[in-house]
Amino acid sequence: MSNEIKLAHGGGGILMQELIRENIVPALKSKSLMELADSARLDVDNISLAFTMDGFVVDPLIFPGGDIGRLAVCGTINDLAARGARPLALSLGLIIEEGLCLEIFRQIMDSVARTAREADVEVVTGDTKVVERGSASGIFITTSGVGQMRRDMDFGPDRIAAGDVVIINGYIGDHGIAVMSLREGISFVSTVKSDVAPLAEMVGKVLDMCGPAVKCMKDPTRGGLAANLNEIARKVGILLEEDKIPVRNQVRGACELLGLDVLSVANEGKMLFVVSEKEAQKALEALNNHPLGRDAAIIGRVDDKAGLVRLKTSIGGERIIDTPYGEELPRIC
Amino acid sequence: MSNEIKLAHGGGGILMQELIRENIVPALKSKSLMELADSARLDVDNISLAFTMDGFVVDPLIFPGGDIGRLAVCGTINDLAARGARPLALSLGLIIEEGLCLEIFRQIMDSVARTAREADVEVVTGDTKVVERGSASGIFITTSGVGQMRRDMDFGPDRIAAGDVVIINGYIGDHGIAVMSLREGISFVSTVKSDVAPLAEMVGKVLDMCGPAVKCMKDPTRGGLAANLNEIARKVGILLEEDKIPVRNQVRGACELLGLDVLSVANEGKMLFVVSEKEAQKALEALNNHPLGRDAAIIGRVDDKAGLVRLKTSIGGERIIDTPYGEELPRIC
Repeated sequence: MSNEIKLAHGGGGILMQELIRENIVPALKSKSLMELADSARLDVDNISLAFTMDGFVVDPLIFPGGDIGRLAVCGTINDLAARGARPLALSLGLIIEEGLCLEIFRQIMDSVARTAREADVEVVTGDTKVVERGSASGIFITTSGVGQMRRDMDFGPDRIAAGDVVIINGYIGDHGIAVMSLREGISFVSTVKSDVAPLAEMVGKVLDMCGPAVKCMKDPTRGGLAANLNEIARKVGILLEEDKIPVRNQVRGACELLGLDVLSVANEGKMLFVVSEKEAQKALEALNNHPLGRDAAIIGRVDDKAGLVRLKTSIGGERIIDTPYGEELPRIC
Repeated sequence: MSNEIKLAHGGGGILMQELIRENIVPALKSKSLMELADSARLDVDNISLAFTMDGFVVDPLIFPGGDIGRLAVCGTINDLAARGARPLALSLGLIIEEGLCLEIFRQIMDSVARTAREADVEVVTGDTKVVERGSASGIFITTSGVGQMRRDMDFGPDRIAAGDVVIINGYIGDHGIAVMSLREGISFVSTVKSDVAPLAEMVGKVLDMCGPAVKCMKDPTRGGLAANLNEIARKVGILLEEDKIPVRNQVRGACELLGLDVLSVANEGKMLFVVSEKEAQKALEALNNHPLGRDAAIIGRVDDKAGLVRLKTSIGGERIIDTPYGEELPRIC
């Protein structure tokens, strides 16, 4: 590792894992942090809580389909949802650059409020700092969330076995491409909107329907499906079918233009479910009955090729999907 | 209000209250936020939790007596302590500027770890973002904390009555002056160290000793004692005695030089206690028996002059202590 922090250290890929594993976890010696999960479990008396935090530095602040405020609420809600937790409360930390236009600030706060109501959760505490012009870029938001976990349900890669089914609740890559197309001025994808949405209710419906048959959930944000599936594939392997993965034509086109693999592009309203084969159809139905899961699809299966994520391509070939290395899309969330 | 955010909006004074009251609270319509308390109370089944968040943008990152890592842990611990809550877990959100020296990053992480151990709490979850060179300044840290509140104890300005006693656990102004003297190159205060320290254990001792006789606690960070005491003095008044307030000579000198009122300078290891007169001596003893409360003192009394914080000066005069207006000391925490 070189002696300074690189932009790529924030990309959700291998470099970021290295930064965390080598420079944060050893200092903090935290068992919970070591799991690198999106949330921690806290047991207080007879209650199990999920506790999570997310920082948001997206550029630009407002993009097709959303803004940093909506992103900040959804990011934390979805981390709680991935743990099967019902969100109880959010906190909102603002670092504002001197000179930020108040109208934009109000627009972002309204978006935070609207999204919190949509997710039926309240922002109960927060903090506001202002830094000099040039010391931040507009506004950075950090949100933290507390949720209540379901009794007798836990989720994680350890519960997965060969034969299990991998489901996604809809089209992938929309968020990353919506932000990038605005930034890079790619006009033909101007109709692609970010998928940013709070998923706790939808996840709740799946859990109500399938219970512990849902073995693992992940929300594929930075690093996309590629990063998440590689986290899951430790003692097992995963075989994806390219034809089954919902990708919009415009997103596919933009990825080709930008030299990106859609599997490593960030999503902000997607959840990966690994479900036992027997209950997979039920999970799919529960998703399809929810507005945020209408385009849900079974996209692959767990196999016994430990540590390998493979993609069966449309033309019948096969390629290995690695964890992305660094930062393909800086400031995407 | 003008149409853009000013540095002074982050100062912990009237301008910041306006920003929050006019632009954040109305959007979020949160009862809990409206209280502008440093933490929120969450009731889950039969358990009461305190939930809090704090952002840290101190400049420079390392200063006499501490650094941004220690500050970030203590700030959140002390917000929980002010609520009488035992800290259960912390989260750590990092926004790092590309180019930050890894050695400094490691030093800050070590400090986070050491301070968390000192406070007997674990960092259980977190988030890391990296932004381009020039988009942040070194590192911003946001911490969030969950604590368990004591049964049948609550604290707040509503419980205060005339005759109650105001206690502080030691010398004030050290943090603000330690950071400012480094920044402004004032050499004669070079021995002043920040008071940054985790106060939960000390507060626990006072509560063990005095129970509900402790009516209100506040940690006077940004805006100092002046801001905190004005928050407390709603239905009551407070009369401080200048002679009783512990201030180091060097801090007093630096304040004169910089044109600051020491009562509005930030502290990071201080707690204000409002205690019923009968138990005040016990509270003072509990504090004096703890390393962080050795210099504790009774500094004033609650009276019935609602909304007024007054200072009886050393020379026998009297002046009104207002909430500071804006930002006297930018980037102090």
